[in-house]
Amino acid sequence: MAAQAGVALKTVSRVVNGEPGVGPGTLARVEQAIIELGYRRNESARQLRSGRAGTLAMVVRDIADPFFAAIGRAVEMTAHRDGQVVMIGSTHEDPKREREVALAFCARRPDALILAPIADSQDYLHPEVEAGLPVVAIDRPAHGILADTVLSDNVGGIRAAVAHLVSHGHRRIGYLGDDQMVYTARERVVAYRAALAEHGIAGDEALVRLAAPTPEGIAHSLGDLLGLGPVPGGLAGAGPVTALITANNRITAEVLRQLPNLPRRTALIGFDDLELADLLVPGLTVIAQDAEGIGRAAMELLDTRLTDPRLPAREVRIPTTLIIRGSAE
Amino acid sequence: MAAQAGVALKTVSRVVNGEPGVGPGTLARVEQAIIELGYRRNESARQLRSGRAGTLAMVVRDIADPFFAAIGRAVEMTAHRDGQVVMIGSTHEDPKREREVALAFCARRPDALILAPIADSQDYLHPEVEAGLPVVAIDRPAHGILADTVLSDNVGGIRAAVAHLVSHGHRRIGYLGDDQMVYTARERVVAYRAALAEHGIAGDEALVRLAAPTPEGIAHSLGDLLGLGPVPGGLAGAGPVTALITANNRITAEVLRQLPNLPRRTALIGFDDLELADLLVPGLTVIAQDAEGIGRAAMELLDTRLTDPRLPAREVRIPTTLIIRGSAE
Repeated sequence: MAAQAGVALKTVSRVVNGEPGVGPGTLARVEQAIIELGYRRNESARQLRSGRAGTLAMVVRDIADPFFAAIGRAVEMTAHRDGQVVMIGSTHEDPKREREVALAFCARRPDALILAPIADSQDYLHPEVEAGLPVVAIDRPAHGILADTVLSDNVGGIRAAVAHLVSHGHRRIGYLGDDQMVYTARERVVAYRAALAEHGIAGDEALVRLAAPTPEGIAHSLGDLLGLGPVPGGLAGAGPVTALITANNRITAEVLRQLPNLPRRTALIGFDDLELADLLVPGLTVIAQDAEGIGRAAMELLDTRLTDPRLPAREVRIPTTLIIRGSAE
Repeated sequence: MAAQAGVALKTVSRVVNGEPGVGPGTLARVEQAIIELGYRRNESARQLRSGRAGTLAMVVRDIADPFFAAIGRAVEMTAHRDGQVVMIGSTHEDPKREREVALAFCARRPDALILAPIADSQDYLHPEVEAGLPVVAIDRPAHGILADTVLSDNVGGIRAAVAHLVSHGHRRIGYLGDDQMVYTARERVVAYRAALAEHGIAGDEALVRLAAPTPEGIAHSLGDLLGLGPVPGGLAGAGPVTALITANNRITAEVLRQLPNLPRRTALIGFDDLELADLLVPGLTVIAQDAEGIGRAAMELLDTRLTDPRLPAREVRIPTTLIIRGSAE
């Protein structure tokens, strides 16, 4: 490329790394050589392998969600070891914003993109992927583009939680999940129904509440499920639940906040761990996702894809762990 | 600029926003015009005000620290309202990494930089600031460059905590703080000593421990301060403390984790709030920082600086709040 542009290698390096000290005419020649030689693709692979300062883009749903913050940290740690910098942004569950943030980041020419999708389709990334940008979807699959995927073993996590509750005598197990539009919410509630069936428990859809978590919605659902609702006795006929599964950390935190005013005997297992969850009385039993494992797996998938961009799309499932602390025992 | 480059306005817009569809020759002419006209400075201001998609860079110490995650979220919310995208990265308390991440981000031409400094000097940003990049330092001041600053009212927070403990009869108040190399750690411990003096309490440096928080170090300090150390009776002569102030959320979380095995009668106030802190028994009394207020103030300082780059450096202090929940009462 230096030859093509008729400049020194050092000058190319300056342009690529955005360093000062390059005259406008020279910059123009190097930029042109970059475009003509399709520089970006190979350089990205080289940078990632060689440990030269490259940049990874990471777009999550909410950086203030401890789950995504922990994945971000794991990615940063691995990237730093490889001499890379990570730029992280949030979509806040807004498909339009996912597109804006992801494209704004892509315009900064990252070596790769790690994305927690919220939009129905990521086809807006098609030109980037065609130009050689490796994409890894985390937490939920991407659609409309070639992307590797790292997901938690949602089914295994829910199965372990249901088995644990059944082994403690529970058969009326309530379920508070997120909106079914959300991939993980869907996967988890399907796993809940299947796990009940495995234990010979007839599913009762009256015990299942699926909605974006709001304090009011959760208060209402808890009232119903625990027999404290506007209808005396709560659920018609069958009576209140004896156990609850809360299907993500936002729902769990809200339920914990509301539970002091509700029957504390109800067993509770939350999906996702929370800081200080071990210090509650009783300690909170959780299905912990391996944020570090997810971050590391994403980096490994990127690494192999940069080495061989023609690999078919791969999917990795990261195991969850049931951490028993007292709230469901 | 379009005239200078001899291209359509739309083409300039494409180049600036990193969109495809611009030929290499055209790209070169626009890039040259950008450099010759010093485009970046004014365009940044215009973008921020007009709400066109611009990008803010934000470099914090640890994205997985709930304090910084909350500031990040607040900045993202305000930026989104202004049609901007935020790229966030972490330094993990490493001065070398601060420089790497900040410069890598600056190479992506953000409209502004929000930085939580860790290095002794930010003079490596001097060329960027000279070129018109507005910088706001948060949590700690920057040095060696012109930057606006948003800090928490550390002194007010510690004063309120000490006054609260004294009003509950405590006079032997231990203090676990971070390494004195850290600006906020220094400001807070100085405030602690001054607040004791205000209440006529002679300071006892044996009650003060300042070190980067490690589980071992905190176990050792707690053992000493609470009279459980290797020396029977703990602190020579004066006896154990009756109250503790933990000067950041990492220290507080570690103390809470170790306290079940230690006398629970000791009053505890932590600097920084923690998720679920209200659900502990007793609830954790904290000096809460206003992460949202810090984020918003940073955005306001950037906004006015973009309007008038010649403003002198300004410093804003954001009040803290003592949230009383039971652990110190």
